Amino acid sequence: MTEPLTTGATIGILGGGQLGRMLSVAASRLGLRTHIYEPGANPPAGDVAHRVTTAGYDDAAALAAFAASVDVVTYEFENIPTTALDLIEQSRVIRPGRQALATSQDRLTEKTFLQGLGLHTAPYAAVDTAADLDAALAQIGHPAILKTRTMGYDGKGQARIMSPDEAAAALAAMTGAPSLLEGFVDFSHEVSVIGARGADGAVACFDPGENVHRDGILHTTTVPARLSPAQRTDAVLIAARILNALDYVGVIGVELFVTPGGLIVNEIAPRVHNSGHWTQNGCLIDQFEQHIRAVAGWPLGDATRHSNVVMENLIGGDMGRVPDLARTNTALHLYGKAEVKAGRKMGHINRITGPAT
Amino acid sequence: MTEPLTTGATIGILGGGQLGRMLSVAASRLGLRTHIYEPGANPPAGDVAHRVTTAGYDDAAALAAFAASVDVVTYEFENIPTTALDLIEQSRVIRPGRQALATSQDRLTEKTFLQGLGLHTAPYAAVDTAADLDAALAQIGHPAILKTRTMGYDGKGQARIMSPDEAAAALAAMTGAPSLLEGFVDFSHEVSVIGARGADGAVACFDPGENVHRDGILHTTTVPARLSPAQRTDAVLIAARILNALDYVGVIGVELFVTPGGLIVNEIAPRVHNSGHWTQNGCLIDQFEQHIRAVAGWPLGDATRHSNVVMENLIGGDMGRVPDLARTNTALHLYGKAEVKAGRKMGHINRITGPAT
Repeated sequence: MTEPLTTGATIGILGGGQLGRMLSVAASRLGLRTHIYEPGANPPAGDVAHRVTTAGYDDAAALAAFAASVDVVTYEFENIPTTALDLIEQSRVIRPGRQALATSQDRLTEKTFLQGLGLHTAPYAAVDTAADLDAALAQIGHPAILKTRTMGYDGKGQARIMSPDEAAAALAAMTGAPSLLEGFVDFSHEVSVIGARGADGAVACFDPGENVHRDGILHTTTVPARLSPAQRTDAVLIAARILNALDYVGVIGVELFVTPGGLIVNEIAPRVHNSGHWTQNGCLIDQFEQHIRAVAGWPLGDATRHSNVVMENLIGGDMGRVPDLARTNTALHLYGKAEVKAGRKMGHINRITGPAT
Repeated sequence: MTEPLTTGATIGILGGGQLGRMLSVAASRLGLRTHIYEPGANPPAGDVAHRVTTAGYDDAAALAAFAASVDVVTYEFENIPTTALDLIEQSRVIRPGRQALATSQDRLTEKTFLQGLGLHTAPYAAVDTAADLDAALAQIGHPAILKTRTMGYDGKGQARIMSPDEAAAALAAMTGAPSLLEGFVDFSHEVSVIGARGADGAVACFDPGENVHRDGILHTTTVPARLSPAQRTDAVLIAARILNALDYVGVIGVELFVTPGGLIVNEIAPRVHNSGHWTQNGCLIDQFEQHIRAVAGWPLGDATRHSNVVMENLIGGDMGRVPDLARTNTALHLYGKAEVKAGRKMGHINRITGPAT
């Protein structure tokens, strides 16, 4: 597709979680429709999408029908089976493109890509066997963290190695999956940049946000982040370099560690990102609309921040706080998930703390 | 219903136009679903509603099934047949209530109600016959404007009478409908207050906006409006008095003429209002969410304005400006209407002009 989508056109979205839900809402603002493809029944995005297909990623007929019914395809999570993407790409453009997915689906590929751009990452080594792990620990030292190369998110598929005698247990926790040992980085705090690149190659980044995690899950993002002007510029330039190198179209999340020696790239996510939810109440155009604009072939929107914001995730039992939160000067964003589970992202809140500084 | 709606509950909305569409989006933010009831096929709200019923307001079976499928009912326009409302009210609460609808559906009832509250309106007189009109013109003078008592919107069902010899033609234009003669008000500009009242009786009003019309259709709304601090207070107090008198639950639009002698109420609309669209990009909580909060039995949200905004409607051929507008620092809101017609509201834009002053 080369022409921008116009009123009534449909964007196909792989995945029907809260990110797909908020992408559907953003598409509606631009007069566009969405069609959600999701294996699970009653996905959160289904409440606001024009159409939902409930089928697995191994259902070739459903995938082909889905592709035929939409004008362009995007996704709300990066762990989509390659076979499904191959099938869709026979008839429809996928944005962001396959290189971005291939790079971010595998931690080893990602780290190699980032270092190839001259960016800094944690020290790392591929680990498939106990011998690999011994060699990696000898090289990188400990503490270190062993992670599966693929399919990890929200701290899942990770094991810390505080001393060499924990190596065997950590390797066992990978259950045979190809893995990566990462050295610890001595950082003061984590920030992330939500960047966007249009089909025309234009790049626009939101102000970096400062992230605090709890139990391996994002807890809060605060803008502005504690960064010097030089660090802020660096953060945005890093995101732009990654976007351009991947010939990227859409929104990307780039997590960065702030260290005395500079910014270190933790990981990239080729999609709208939890740490960008503050943009919904801090900017004229939020990350979801920015992604839709890019995917639809539209010009990027105004990424200027008008307010200082604190975003806080509502996880599992936090839903019990909603009646009280509804009484405060807070924007609630609930995902419509009926079942509350420990560790499940149920919603988030944005609190404006003042005009942008 | 007395308990606030919780995640997954459904709000029924009568009418599937752009207001229903934006109400559906607001409901999704709070984890709620919407079910649209609309006689026309493929309504704009259908793109983002969980469910759509396509049926007429005379279809008793469809209305009963609709009511049974939702937890509470609201509406996006006030000209709903009384029989349909009676049927729905047998099983479900309608918010805002019947008194608000009855008052605003008939210009005579509305004017009488407003004067009963001690508020100022244009001079008026009921007109059913040529004799009535002669008497009304003798009392009110000319120029004046003859309007049908019911079913008028966007300047439809109105005829100006600049001199008595235009009286007969104006009366003929009413095609026999009960009418109202209104005297002209010498006002400097028009403002409107978007007010909200919760089920708990709490009232919250957005800052008044200043309206400019073209060809009888709203063209722009600008905040802040040109009002003295005393006028601003008056405007909000007028809206609050109306809300309380109607024991209102939901958002109301109150149009006011600014005159040297004070504020004069032009008309009220018992629903979210075109002149409140600026709240989407000027406030933490917009008029659509405020309405959903009230209808759902939630506390009202934060109506504070964080930015100065100019809202401009996109009418008919204005859609041709969208590609250029997409390149500016503007939030586009398109309604997904496939067919462009002269005078048809296709979307609107909000431009932030600075921090709130």
